[in-house]
Amino acid sequence: MKIGLDIMGGDHAPKAIVLGAVEAHKSLNPNEHIVLIGDTSQIYPILNDLDFNPDHFEYIHTDECISMGEHPTKAILQKPNSSIAVGFNLLKENKIQSFASAGNSGAMLVGAVLSVKTIPGIIRPCLSSIVPKIKGGMGLLLDVGANADCKPDTLLQFGILGSLYAENIMGIPNPKVGLMNIGEEDEKGNMLSMATFPLMKETKLFNFIGNIEGRDMFNDKADVIVCDGFTGNIMLKLAESFYVLTIKKGLKDEFFDRFNYEQYGGSPVLGVNAPVVIGHGISNPRAVKNMILQSKEMIVSKLTEKITSAFN
Amino acid sequence: MKIGLDIMGGDHAPKAIVLGAVEAHKSLNPNEHIVLIGDTSQIYPILNDLDFNPDHFEYIHTDECISMGEHPTKAILQKPNSSIAVGFNLLKENKIQSFASAGNSGAMLVGAVLSVKTIPGIIRPCLSSIVPKIKGGMGLLLDVGANADCKPDTLLQFGILGSLYAENIMGIPNPKVGLMNIGEEDEKGNMLSMATFPLMKETKLFNFIGNIEGRDMFNDKADVIVCDGFTGNIMLKLAESFYVLTIKKGLKDEFFDRFNYEQYGGSPVLGVNAPVVIGHGISNPRAVKNMILQSKEMIVSKLTEKITSAFN
Repeated sequence: MKIGLDIMGGDHAPKAIVLGAVEAHKSLNPNEHIVLIGDTSQIYPILNDLDFNPDHFEYIHTDECISMGEHPTKAILQKPNSSIAVGFNLLKENKIQSFASAGNSGAMLVGAVLSVKTIPGIIRPCLSSIVPKIKGGMGLLLDVGANADCKPDTLLQFGILGSLYAENIMGIPNPKVGLMNIGEEDEKGNMLSMATFPLMKETKLFNFIGNIEGRDMFNDKADVIVCDGFTGNIMLKLAESFYVLTIKKGLKDEFFDRFNYEQYGGSPVLGVNAPVVIGHGISNPRAVKNMILQSKEMIVSKLTEKITSAFN
Repeated sequence: MKIGLDIMGGDHAPKAIVLGAVEAHKSLNPNEHIVLIGDTSQIYPILNDLDFNPDHFEYIHTDECISMGEHPTKAILQKPNSSIAVGFNLLKENKIQSFASAGNSGAMLVGAVLSVKTIPGIIRPCLSSIVPKIKGGMGLLLDVGANADCKPDTLLQFGILGSLYAENIMGIPNPKVGLMNIGEEDEKGNMLSMATFPLMKETKLFNFIGNIEGRDMFNDKADVIVCDGFTGNIMLKLAESFYVLTIKKGLKDEFFDRFNYEQYGGSPVLGVNAPVVIGHGISNPRAVKNMILQSKEMIVSKLTEKITSAFN
């Protein structure tokens, strides 16, 4: 198994990424290899300082880099030698079995769709985010920004994707799927949620528990929260701003600590033909380590195959 | 001036409402009268216990009540003798100059539109909510649920309404208006926000500062945050759940304290031909007092007239 990692992406790249890979290596089995993709000349000094044997990793040298501000599609097409574009080529050719980066999220999404392609039957791949639950454990929110406008059947598919991820990667049996809405009653909502509700109510593809509200994001009503990417992105950023506030104000609490993205790695892209994980821009070594272990889990659990068979 | 107050609405009605009116009375001038609308037989014992002279208030007796769970439109039409229906009739006949209730929000919205009507030129009235800012002071979020689906020109109008409220009632000169979105760049968004952005950018009717994100709800980027009612309702409930969490966990902080709805009264309905305020269901006397003072401010500042002239 080869786990691909872009060492050029993220605010603290390449050092934090390489350090994270070193940490992850300690948790991997001998047949699980990390492939570092990026400017190799920057990797060796970091490993040297750690007195870490470079033979533990594989390397793919690249000499271009997509920065955070670049236009995703243009960057992917105009920088074929960038770590992200090269990573996706390797993934497409199955030279790596997963690809993770804390770099330009848009480029990661576009790269995934252009290279390994969307799984047949899936209308739109989506980006999910792991969210903490007050009583412990984690939930999944999707979409968080890949699809600003959605249709009812797209949301229905997000329910399937989220349910499969929660069950196979997060270890939640028969995950409860809720539709984010402005009231709990069946008939509440905007045009999109009102049209989605009956589709979800009828489906046998996941355990739909009905409409949930903004106040239910962190409680146990739903394990998987489905919404369009506009709503999900705003919710996620609002929640993150609250977490940042509690940190700034020195408020210590176990629940708020679990907002710390470091603990769970990155955001999985769901619905493409290979495991792809997008890390937070500010990823530190711990976050990178967990992003690698998360990628491994997505490979080991055969999530892509399970999603493929659910849609065929 | 006569300030109408429904004493039957809210989880702690009528006692909390009457106690709030007694508190508010102390802050009013002799020509500013509170009109209590509801079951008068329940009012006198409360005033008696307080040794409060009942002559300080005016009374309109009603013998029906719209409960929280009722369907708004049906309830308003089928219960003409309910405190909410009677209140709006008084408002329509200018026997009171404002109307406030902590009761069924939907019935309050429907009642406002059916009785005093929408101000000419306004597509859809909206419900706004006051939100605390980290560095102090307050901002305004709208719409928070009256209009689950919006069009670009409706959002443009919310910008005007919010700006007028912020300037005239909240005392914020030249309020900064932001469009809630999933990125700061001009071209970011869903179809609605992308179509709204150019309208706001061109307008001279308010001080548009551009797109803002979920993380900007509590910072100083914008005084007035415009979004559709689906997004706003979810944001508001998510933020409230965070506030409730900080309370439950015993985290004390001045910023989180300012989430306490008691301090600012209720949510103004903007775009109808009279001041209407909807209180939180759990309103206590302090919240009711502030809802009355807020109603008074909306009358004194001639907000309705200012909105009318802005749209004509």
